[in-house]
Amino acid sequence: MLSFTIQNVLIAISDDYATVDVQVVDGKIAAISPNLQVIGTAIDGKNKLLLPGFFNAHTHSSEMWQRGIMSTFPLELWLAELYDFAPLDPEQVYLSALGTAVETLLSGGTSVVDHLVLIPGLELETIAIAARAYREVGIRAFIAPLIQDESLSAGIPSGESTQSHEPYFRSTAATLEIIEEAVRQFHRPDEGVSILVAPTGIQLCTDALFAGCIELSDRYNLCRHSHLLETRAQEKLAQEKYGCTAVEHLKKIGFLSDRTTLAHCVWLNDADIAILAETQSTVVHNPLSNLRLGSGIAPILKYRQAGVNVTFGCDGASSNDSQDLLEAIKIGSILHNVTDSDYQHWITPRQAVEMASLGGAKGFNLADQLGSLTVGKQADLVLYDLTNLSLLPRTDPIGLLVLGRPSNVVDSIWVNGKQIVTNHQVTTINVDELRQELFNRSQWQTKRKSETVAQIEAHYRTVMDL
Amino acid sequence: MLSFTIQNVLIAISDDYATVDVQVVDGKIAAISPNLQVIGTAIDGKNKLLLPGFFNAHTHSSEMWQRGIMSTFPLELWLAELYDFAPLDPEQVYLSALGTAVETLLSGGTSVVDHLVLIPGLELETIAIAARAYREVGIRAFIAPLIQDESLSAGIPSGESTQSHEPYFRSTAATLEIIEEAVRQFHRPDEGVSILVAPTGIQLCTDALFAGCIELSDRYNLCRHSHLLETRAQEKLAQEKYGCTAVEHLKKIGFLSDRTTLAHCVWLNDADIAILAETQSTVVHNPLSNLRLGSGIAPILKYRQAGVNVTFGCDGASSNDSQDLLEAIKIGSILHNVTDSDYQHWITPRQAVEMASLGGAKGFNLADQLGSLTVGKQADLVLYDLTNLSLLPRTDPIGLLVLGRPSNVVDSIWVNGKQIVTNHQVTTINVDELRQELFNRSQWQTKRKSETVAQIEAHYRTVMDL
Repeated sequence: MLSFTIQNVLIAISDDYATVDVQVVDGKIAAISPNLQVIGTAIDGKNKLLLPGFFNAHTHSSEMWQRGIMSTFPLELWLAELYDFAPLDPEQVYLSALGTAVETLLSGGTSVVDHLVLIPGLELETIAIAARAYREVGIRAFIAPLIQDESLSAGIPSGESTQSHEPYFRSTAATLEIIEEAVRQFHRPDEGVSILVAPTGIQLCTDALFAGCIELSDRYNLCRHSHLLETRAQEKLAQEKYGCTAVEHLKKIGFLSDRTTLAHCVWLNDADIAILAETQSTVVHNPLSNLRLGSGIAPILKYRQAGVNVTFGCDGASSNDSQDLLEAIKIGSILHNVTDSDYQHWITPRQAVEMASLGGAKGFNLADQLGSLTVGKQADLVLYDLTNLSLLPRTDPIGLLVLGRPSNVVDSIWVNGKQIVTNHQVTTINVDELRQELFNRSQWQTKRKSETVAQIEAHYRTVMDL
Repeated sequence: MLSFTIQNVLIAISDDYATVDVQVVDGKIAAISPNLQVIGTAIDGKNKLLLPGFFNAHTHSSEMWQRGIMSTFPLELWLAELYDFAPLDPEQVYLSALGTAVETLLSGGTSVVDHLVLIPGLELETIAIAARAYREVGIRAFIAPLIQDESLSAGIPSGESTQSHEPYFRSTAATLEIIEEAVRQFHRPDEGVSILVAPTGIQLCTDALFAGCIELSDRYNLCRHSHLLETRAQEKLAQEKYGCTAVEHLKKIGFLSDRTTLAHCVWLNDADIAILAETQSTVVHNPLSNLRLGSGIAPILKYRQAGVNVTFGCDGASSNDSQDLLEAIKIGSILHNVTDSDYQHWITPRQAVEMASLGGAKGFNLADQLGSLTVGKQADLVLYDLTNLSLLPRTDPIGLLVLGRPSNVVDSIWVNGKQIVTNHQVTTINVDELRQELFNRSQWQTKRKSETVAQIEAHYRTVMDL
């Protein structure tokens, strides 16, 4: 059942393409060569391109409920609005996890990293239901329960005023216990579901929380995930909090490692970049949300030149406002051409594909198992239909895929050798029923009024010199 | 036949939505109100959003043949590669015009401005076949035959060297005669095809060519279209050529007017911006190609604050590499949030819709006839299906459309009251046959070697300090 042979399919080789057969046996790539014997089901690869699956390496699935309606705000105010209207029903989390998985798959992703917002008081239920959704779809899931131990207002710099903040509603110890219990119940890497330790970031986490996460990561061999320096406000806050940069502080407390993925990384200086390279940390680039929230342009070309591993994420659908990974890869590639006039440094479509696949595998400590079409690796594969109008006329298939605006081009997907997309349709769940549920549980509406924004906006404008 | 009534459809009103009926009689909007009498065909508008059609206000249709394969180059080198492999067969121009029209329509555009590259020696044939393609599809077409009277190498600043350039292969007078003949033969605004005068830009045009274009524009009441200051190299070149900015020069020679549209406008200073406002010129923002070619981020928020009219274009498909207008509108809106930390200046989704519709109508001197849902205006209308997964859950429909990544959401389109898209399909041409033709006339390939780039690259790098 997990064995099949794709025949006569285009694959990328060095600087060219080749037409080959690809044999998958027991969920692993067994052979890549022309004219192979058919093992298992024969799949027609004619006029199709086979690539390793991409990572949607940073998202927040439940933001799907608020996409399209969030105000045009910077992160700090946007977060206040987001939390004022966050979904509180686990069934909603289930549906938005399904939706996130479907959109990720149909834009070439086979892995999703869900920095999952937990419903207060229903933390383990939230994790359980997201895990259930991803298992049902069959996408490879990295669930990173979003934790913090400071209240939201602490994430804005104080400036010259003295601000006091409400204590966070749950203790640091209780939060860490939830994560440990989640690891016991849901961390099953061999079955395609992993739990990550995922403190939201320096802006809302104490050193005690980071230390607890590091300890769990070491004890259970878990990857580490966090936001890092998404905004100028966070850069200011780090100086207020630590008297040094956030990266220097994270290095000092031992959070950075070769299995640490850091979302955004917009406001790093050259010394910070050197630290990321030295610690072999991975940057997850979320270009759409960095634009939408006005966070800035992450110095991705500098990261690449410094040898820092970079991969792509959609970020949550409320700051994007989609989960189209090909869009994130396109914009995340071309955006940087305006930051460096020497075009020899620009990201090529083939480099972008490698960042989205192998770059993700490296970040989640799976480079020996995922991220490329290599014999022995697991079969997380995406077959693209090159006869779609959006990929015509025929030129360079990877150029068309990365730089174009492909629409409905994902023909088939296998994760760990199991086929979950066939003939452009997700076959593991009823997507039309999902669509109906999302429709029925929502209402068209115009802009809402956030109470929290009303409370904090004046302070934000003062501190940020607006 | 050009009369119909859309029932129970969502439309945008001030800061909200209303459910109304929209009556179209003889191609014009006759009434907008709840519970109207049905005139002509009844169209079910339930769960759909009706917007005025957008303008794809700057493209080069025949670039479709090279999308996906162009090197990651800045404009000047990219152009050299483009022209080395430009299609030379009018049948190719026909097919790429059809393709450009189809992709524009299916992303919400009802008007296309084709800055059409003319096949040398077949100039009128090129214009004729593009006009035929657009008439067949039924999209509103503004054909802007791309003309110049200096050879390509003249578009790169000389720097300190003395460069001599081959004379252009056709005289200025002969070029202007072609345009005048094109106006006589093809300029039929009432039938949906207009000819524009369209010198490519200061980098490759003499003042004599501009003067001839202005004269034709005045005599035949034609709109004017040109590239303007797309790159830093062009900014340098203008100083070399005129000893002032390109905008100052264009003002002096009288090219700027309330029917002049200027593509790109990346490298303007504040005085230049004031001139655009004063002359009521329109900026056509092409965000994707400006990123892809590393041209820069156009100061769109400054234009808006100065009262300059702005609308969107996809630019040619070789520098984009698509013709998805919704993508251009999304990126053209959110890109600027990183250029101004005060979010109160950021472009909202509703403002983006107005820029894409009324902004285009203003730029082409048709604000009294197009660009909004207003009784008396022509029915260039797009009906969006709000039940598509990419527009769910239901939140703010315009927010979802502009900030999301809508896929296959255009249900129906009317241009001048004639329906040309029904049930998500262009009905006026056989799109599947087009797809087959594009497939059959092309080959998958990897990077090509441009002779011209090899000749000019060293000089370019020197002049640009690379």
